[in-house]
Amino acid sequence: MSKKQTSILITNDDGIYAEGIYHLKKALQGLGKITVVAPLVEKSAVGHAITLSDPLRVMEIDRYGEFFGYAVNGTPADCVKIGGRCILEDKPDIVVSGINQGSNTGMNIIYSGTVSAAAEGIIMNIPSVAISLTSYTKKEFAYSRKIARRVTSEVLNHGLPDGTLINVNVPAVKEKEIEGVVVTRQGKGRFEEAFDRREDPNKRTYYWLTGKRMLLDNDEDVDDVVIHKNMVSITPIHYDLTNYRFLEELKTGKLGP
Amino acid sequence: MSKKQTSILITNDDGIYAEGIYHLKKALQGLGKITVVAPLVEKSAVGHAITLSDPLRVMEIDRYGEFFGYAVNGTPADCVKIGGRCILEDKPDIVVSGINQGSNTGMNIIYSGTVSAAAEGIIMNIPSVAISLTSYTKKEFAYSRKIARRVTSEVLNHGLPDGTLINVNVPAVKEKEIEGVVVTRQGKGRFEEAFDRREDPNKRTYYWLTGKRMLLDNDEDVDDVVIHKNMVSITPIHYDLTNYRFLEELKTGKLGP
Repeated sequence: MSKKQTSILITNDDGIYAEGIYHLKKALQGLGKITVVAPLVEKSAVGHAITLSDPLRVMEIDRYGEFFGYAVNGTPADCVKIGGRCILEDKPDIVVSGINQGSNTGMNIIYSGTVSAAAEGIIMNIPSVAISLTSYTKKEFAYSRKIARRVTSEVLNHGLPDGTLINVNVPAVKEKEIEGVVVTRQGKGRFEEAFDRREDPNKRTYYWLTGKRMLLDNDEDVDDVVIHKNMVSITPIHYDLTNYRFLEELKTGKLGP
Repeated sequence: MSKKQTSILITNDDGIYAEGIYHLKKALQGLGKITVVAPLVEKSAVGHAITLSDPLRVMEIDRYGEFFGYAVNGTPADCVKIGGRCILEDKPDIVVSGINQGSNTGMNIIYSGTVSAAAEGIIMNIPSVAISLTSYTKKEFAYSRKIARRVTSEVLNHGLPDGTLINVNVPAVKEKEIEGVVVTRQGKGRFEEAFDRREDPNKRTYYWLTGKRMLLDNDEDVDDVVIHKNMVSITPIHYDLTNYRFLEELKTGKLGP
């Protein structure tokens, strides 16, 4: 029996017209049949949102004069669900989400549409990878393309434990400036937020969320620390959210039965 | 020096006009100064979304002829951020999110707006609690009100470990049918999804996400198992998403440096 062609589902949260997803598709060319299913418009910081109250529509999208993929009027998680269940006949062999512009590290990954797409993949029992470039503006995609291809190949060849995705962050620098590739753990880095209070032309108050990223770790094996040293960070992420250590304490304590 | 009054921030994802948040406010009366900051409209299944691209507005809302709280045109996470940083002068002593209609257990908690509000609390270093009633329709709030008050009091008195929230699910039955209160771990329960494909009056295809909840656990100490036995489930949740077991393997393997 001939093995079916490897099926790769690509998505992102910057939207189907973003530069990163174009690079990702190019980077994975030749590894299998690639299907792009991505949000029609940018869906950053949507967390693991799914669309329950609105109908979803699927549109065929061309880029540079040729068919590129399918756009969905939903979130990255919606794209993986509808891609894996409606657009593709069978579940894909891998979900690859990215290449995001902006790092997804520390506590901030819980806001990340890019990582949530990969999370949706593992909920569907599909090995999944999220890839981010650590700059919102610098278009230094060359090395992240290489890493995307390498990690995707390795995951296709070796698989991943059930319920685990690989979260990759690539410094937005040239290859010769990259200092290595490191397996890391998720740090505690997060945004210190503020709200910018303004008045609209009708004298009504409104607020913009602002903030700056805080590096709260020092350890050499932490995602945020590593990328600041121009190293690629590779973190295995799962969604077993139970705090087991506190669970035992809780059983004996006031909150228990 | 006199101790400042305890400050309690209440939010939800069913919206400020939902029945559950009204019961929650009533349930916590007398434990401190209660401030309600909740989404203006229902925001279920928004995951940990935050609003970056739109301005946020805050509205004062009355219910039953008296001031009830503040509505925000955003997500539950937005409500906790703006509540804790703009509406209240100081960070509250606790965030309590609920009472949600519909359980938040197993893998489904990553979609939950209710739990994400509590997660936002712990990101801001505020002890936080999420409370759900295990029915979308049954208005059996009486026992969940008791549990909400009890858990809130205990957390105010004893605190929680950094970065840990308490996720409570209360069966939607009368108190006399409740079989106990159990400390649990997060199970693997999730939705088995399907898409309902339809045509609109203009012959364009659209899809509704549907699905049914799958119970994938048997162990006595799992959230989903416990609530099916009419017991209250209390789970300590944190957001350290690193799969440490696989991390060590990864360091020695193909994906490593």
